Amino acid sequence: MTLPASIPHIGALAAGARNAITDVAGVTVGHCTLADGDLQTGVTVVRPHAGDPFRDRVPAAAVVLNGFGKSTGLVQLQELGLIDTPIALTNTFSVPAVAMAQIRQCITTNPRTGRGIDTVNPLVLECNDGYLNDIQRMAITEQHYLQALASAGEAVEQGSVGAGRGMSSFGLKGGIGTASRRVPARQGREHTLGVLVQANFGKLPQLVLAGDPIGARLAAQQADTTADGPEKGSIIMLIATDAPLDARQLRRLALRAGAGLARTGSVFGHGSGDIAVAFSTAYTVPQDPLRPMPALAMLHDALLDDLFQAAADSTEQAIIHALWHATSVTGRAGHRRRALLSE
Amino acid sequence: MTLPASIPHIGALAAGARNAITDVAGVTVGHCTLADGDLQTGVTVVRPHAGDPFRDRVPAAAVVLNGFGKSTGLVQLQELGLIDTPIALTNTFSVPAVAMAQIRQCITTNPRTGRGIDTVNPLVLECNDGYLNDIQRMAITEQHYLQALASAGEAVEQGSVGAGRGMSSFGLKGGIGTASRRVPARQGREHTLGVLVQANFGKLPQLVLAGDPIGARLAAQQADTTADGPEKGSIIMLIATDAPLDARQLRRLALRAGAGLARTGSVFGHGSGDIAVAFSTAYTVPQDPLRPMPALAMLHDALLDDLFQAAADSTEQAIIHALWHATSVTGRAGHRRRALLSE
Amino acid sequence: MTLPASIPHIGALAAGARNAITDVAGVTVGHCTLADGDLQTGVTVVRPHAGDPFRDRVPAAAVVLNGFGKSTGLVQLQELGLIDTPIALTNTFSVPAVAMAQIRQCITTNPRTGRGIDTVNPLVLECNDGYLNDIQRMAITEQHYLQALASAGEAVEQGSVGAGRGMSSFGLKGGIGTASRRVPARQGREHTLGVLVQANFGKLPQLVLAGDPIGARLAAQQADTTADGPEKGSIIMLIATDAPLDARQLRRLALRAGAGLARTGSVFGHGSGDIAVAFSTAYTVPQDPLRPMPALAMLHDALLDDLFQAAADSTEQAIIHALWHATSVTGRAGHRRRALLSE
Amino acid sequence: MTLPASIPHIGALAAGARNAITDVAGVTVGHCTLADGDLQTGVTVVRPHAGDPFRDRVPAAAVVLNGFGKSTGLVQLQELGLIDTPIALTNTFSVPAVAMAQIRQCITTNPRTGRGIDTVNPLVLECNDGYLNDIQRMAITEQHYLQALASAGEAVEQGSVGAGRGMSSFGLKGGIGTASRRVPARQGREHTLGVLVQANFGKLPQLVLAGDPIGARLAAQQADTTADGPEKGSIIMLIATDAPLDARQLRRLALRAGAGLARTGSVFGHGSGDIAVAFSTAYTVPQDPLRPMPALAMLHDALLDDLFQAAADSTEQAIIHALWHATSVTGRAGHRRRALLSE
Repeated sequence: MTLPASIPHIGALAAGARNAITDVAGVTVGHCTLADGDLQTGVTVVRPHAGDPFRDRVPAAAVVLNGFGKSTGLVQLQELGLIDTPIALTNTFSVPAVAMAQIRQCITTNPRTGRGIDTVNPLVLECNDGYLNDIQRMAITEQHYLQALASAGEAVEQGSVGAGRGMSSFGLKGGIGTASRRVPARQGREHTLGVLVQANFGKLPQLVLAGDPIGARLAAQQADTTADGPEKGSIIMLIATDAPLDARQLRRLALRAGAGLARTGSVFGHGSGDIAVAFSTAYTVPQDPLRPMPALAMLHDALLDDLFQAAADSTEQAIIHALWHATSVTGRAGHRRRALLSE
Repeated sequence: MTLPASIPHIGALAAGARNAITDVAGVTVGHCTLADGDLQTGVTVVRPHAGDPFRDRVPAAAVVLNGFGKSTGLVQLQELGLIDTPIALTNTFSVPAVAMAQIRQCITTNPRTGRGIDTVNPLVLECNDGYLNDIQRMAITEQHYLQALASAGEAVEQGSVGAGRGMSSFGLKGGIGTASRRVPARQGREHTLGVLVQANFGKLPQLVLAGDPIGARLAAQQADTTADGPEKGSIIMLIATDAPLDARQLRRLALRAGAGLARTGSVFGHGSGDIAVAFSTAYTVPQDPLRPMPALAMLHDALLDDLFQAAADSTEQAIIHALWHATSVTGRAGHRRRALLSE
Repeated sequence: MTLPASIPHIGALAAGARNAITDVAGVTVGHCTLADGDLQTGVTVVRPHAGDPFRDRVPAAAVVLNGFGKSTGLVQLQELGLIDTPIALTNTFSVPAVAMAQIRQCITTNPRTGRGIDTVNPLVLECNDGYLNDIQRMAITEQHYLQALASAGEAVEQGSVGAGRGMSSFGLKGGIGTASRRVPARQGREHTLGVLVQANFGKLPQLVLAGDPIGARLAAQQADTTADGPEKGSIIMLIATDAPLDARQLRRLALRAGAGLARTGSVFGHGSGDIAVAFSTAYTVPQDPLRPMPALAMLHDALLDDLFQAAADSTEQAIIHALWHATSVTGRAGHRRRALLSE
Repeated sequence: MTLPASIPHIGALAAGARNAITDVAGVTVGHCTLADGDLQTGVTVVRPHAGDPFRDRVPAAAVVLNGFGKSTGLVQLQELGLIDTPIALTNTFSVPAVAMAQIRQCITTNPRTGRGIDTVNPLVLECNDGYLNDIQRMAITEQHYLQALASAGEAVEQGSVGAGRGMSSFGLKGGIGTASRRVPARQGREHTLGVLVQANFGKLPQLVLAGDPIGARLAAQQADTTADGPEKGSIIMLIATDAPLDARQLRRLALRAGAGLARTGSVFGHGSGDIAVAFSTAYTVPQDPLRPMPALAMLHDALLDDLFQAAADSTEQAIIHALWHATSVTGRAGHRRRALLSE
């Protein structure tokens, strides 16, 4: 099998300077990675802006393409159209530990949380890295979340890092990927959209790389395939944009991550928790109702098509990046996932 | 103010033998209560049947009337239409601890959970008891969940117990309430429906007790009312029935809890997480796809009206029971909620 | 049975000057009534503002409490969060005729509709008046819609008029009712909320009038009751407000109509299409994306509770008005519904 | 540009005997085509079984990927999980005429419809063929629907026929396409899944044909492209299967049509009504609640992946068929869409 010499570029829109979710101004990403024998897991944090997300909340929406997943925080996100914590990614059984860490961290910065003022809504999304990682040990602690948070910056490490450390995708090594697209001005100004994925889905024969059904060829070469079992993976897709959109529009945008996902070969498998969350950095909503609400014009829905294209293209690109940057990992019970580039 | 001499009976349908959710055969309820100074909280567990819910899952659905809530587990419940753990109730900031306990408990009984077979989906619903309880201390531990689970039986203690220990409702002491109704046979056989609520919602002037707007009278008597602030409560409503219903029908049933809730004066306040979960005990779905699926006829939708009535009436009745059985509690910072019967 | 001497006032909020949906500035209502033997039906139109709703669209949302209904237009309303026609009410089998009329009317005022520019989205909601009206004759024509539209004004006739002509509610004569509430300023300015209902739901024993279970008493008096059959009615609830809300918030508001509905005795019966649509007149969104989008601050969600209360109270009040103002009607096959006031 | 010599086969699953939705036993398809100058439109009808769908209803679900559409009937379909008419496709402004025809046709076969028994729920889905067809003339009548219904059979004409007559896709001639896949037995028996699409979506540069981005090449060759305007198309995707699935499972299945759609280049454009309806022929639900309900085991959800794959593959294949079989059409105002094969 021959891979392309360099990473294919998806679509006609140009990427941002980093080709990363951090091309959306203010967004930062941090990782904490555990890589020690049977423990191959971690935490990844996306901060929507540099301030306190509990006090200044970003508008957001979520779409559950397939709900075989244990993410927490989506009920309130969907009702209020807001995110009030950093967004955390981790493994399935570590969701409670990270949620607890988010609560404690919010109490630290907002001591009246849950006393005089509202409780905080932990937002933790997950995939099951149980093939490479012994999730039964529930190894993630509050400290790992805080380390990931403290390390957040504009440079985004990809592949087998953070919450992506133990992830598998298409029978290969999956993990964290990111990408971005610049959306030309139609009315008003240019916008940027970025995506970060935690890729842990798909069976090898399904894999389509930038239109090339490479997975079928790879699967044909393998005598002993692990691709026979049912898919038990998932993918979390986070979309950031600086376009002024409200929660209804962000829901529309989040759904388009599914188009990018489908192009890589996914059919949103039964056992896969396929969830997209989109947020805008164009404005914030104050926790305190006595502070003034933002007054700005949203984008007209008829101008959303380029953002839809950017969301789909960035998602496909981010998945490719996750595979391309992944390094091979051996973990629990000697299980091993080879990186795409090692094939 | 004069309360009625005895608890009013809501509606024309007869109650079951216990007037409790445990009138649905197989359902049991357990509590673990913490009552120690600033800690006034707990855990309540509803077991859908005596077996292992991970291996034999009950069909279920959820309706979010108002999503200002931090419950976990609803995403997968809504996708698969199944519950695979006991249902746990607790306070807002203890959701992660109880979710962790559910994961560990499932691993104990199903050692391959998250290794060879699927991960388990913790199902923890919550209300904010922060007025009486210091939720920032996150006092609930795995042991409290296990104690509640171990204590599950057919007799249901109501009022200021378990997850209801620190709850407030209509500016009075809220907590756990339960009720049931028998649904006469139209086609086929009689059915039973039971409801258990964790009542922590409402402002005093709104309270309507079995049609009587008692809250307005009580509020008028009080010089110093706590009813001025915004509502920050919630209510969780669990519906069990032995009628054979699929997930779509159970979603319809769960929504009718909202009718009973509205009759007590609620308008599903902004800050209230008002969530209903309905499940059927008429059949189970195996975790293992190699085991046979149940083959039984569902109830025709045209025969659902009596169950809808039973769901609304039982919910209203269960809320009244929560208020009626509650005892006054003094907790965090000397905050006190008086019981309805003490007024 | 003794009715109260005058119409009870629901809740603590004051009504607007007309106690009608037209208290929301700019909203008008028109009727066209057919009352001729077996034909007892009509059309009611609510205009959100005096302009062309296709060019200047009002933000809106819909909630389907129970979807046994044949309304048209909700798919696009929910996606775009906008209404682009007057809102029409009629009987079940006349939805297509009225939809056709709306399309033709839009073509008249916007000749490029469906040619150079977007198609129009007819919005027609319905209840089944088949007990009093021979719906099989599909008697409503384009002219009836245009007459209702042309007659729209601020004075709202209630009871057995327009789309309410043939409607039944609680085994009594139902029809059109309206009410409004003024919401005091918390932050910023006072707002008005109005509701118009097409009431065609409920069985007599369920009827609760302002907290009084009058229906059970009435049913006990009747030897020959029509209340035995399953409920086949419906209710459409339209909410208007001048508060600046986006589509997500309007969806939250629409749901609260269900609380008002429940207080009258409804449990959202299986055979009832219970649908609420809420819209805001605070701003419009242009059809033409080249025109500027509105830039104004939405209300903070934490300030929604009074509007929620107003939506519930106005809905209950509007249903009472529909019953109170209804006149007895004899229609198809000699079927007769007596007015509440004639009991 | 070079097209492949024959129609590419999508995916690894084998097609049914006809490679059509009618490979699902009992399903038939009929067309009525209007092709006369400015009128280039029609009706297509899918019958789920040979009997009366009002008396014997098929379980069904719908997914709205993008709700810029005027389909009617989805509210009740989603509530009850049933279809009670043949499924009709037509142009946007002819939805009311076809709905009226469905009502009348049901009254003919069930004279008590809307009198003694329930009303019927017309199910009409649409795309906007306004580029080639003068939709303002609303040319479709009841007779056209009845002709399409009468012509229903197992052989399915594809391309510029029936409701597909005036449709455009990717700036080329679109229309009706169909395909099927056989799903091997995992537990129990083999199943068949078929899809029929009304393809009217996409801009030329987006078109991907079986993985080949042919649209970008075609667009580059065209000096005068019509691809610059915003997408105003839509796609309706109907999925039939003989696998025993309930409404919840059928909703999951319907969503997978979106994966097939995305592979052809769609990002579910803002102006596109992208709607999927899935139904099962494995059993029916009686209109009359006195008749027995079906008692059969549904497929375990863990066995759905092959059906998901079949839904995605059949949808992509059906879209290719629509393009491949389309013939060039000149219509309203001399507008012309060239067939893919003519390029």
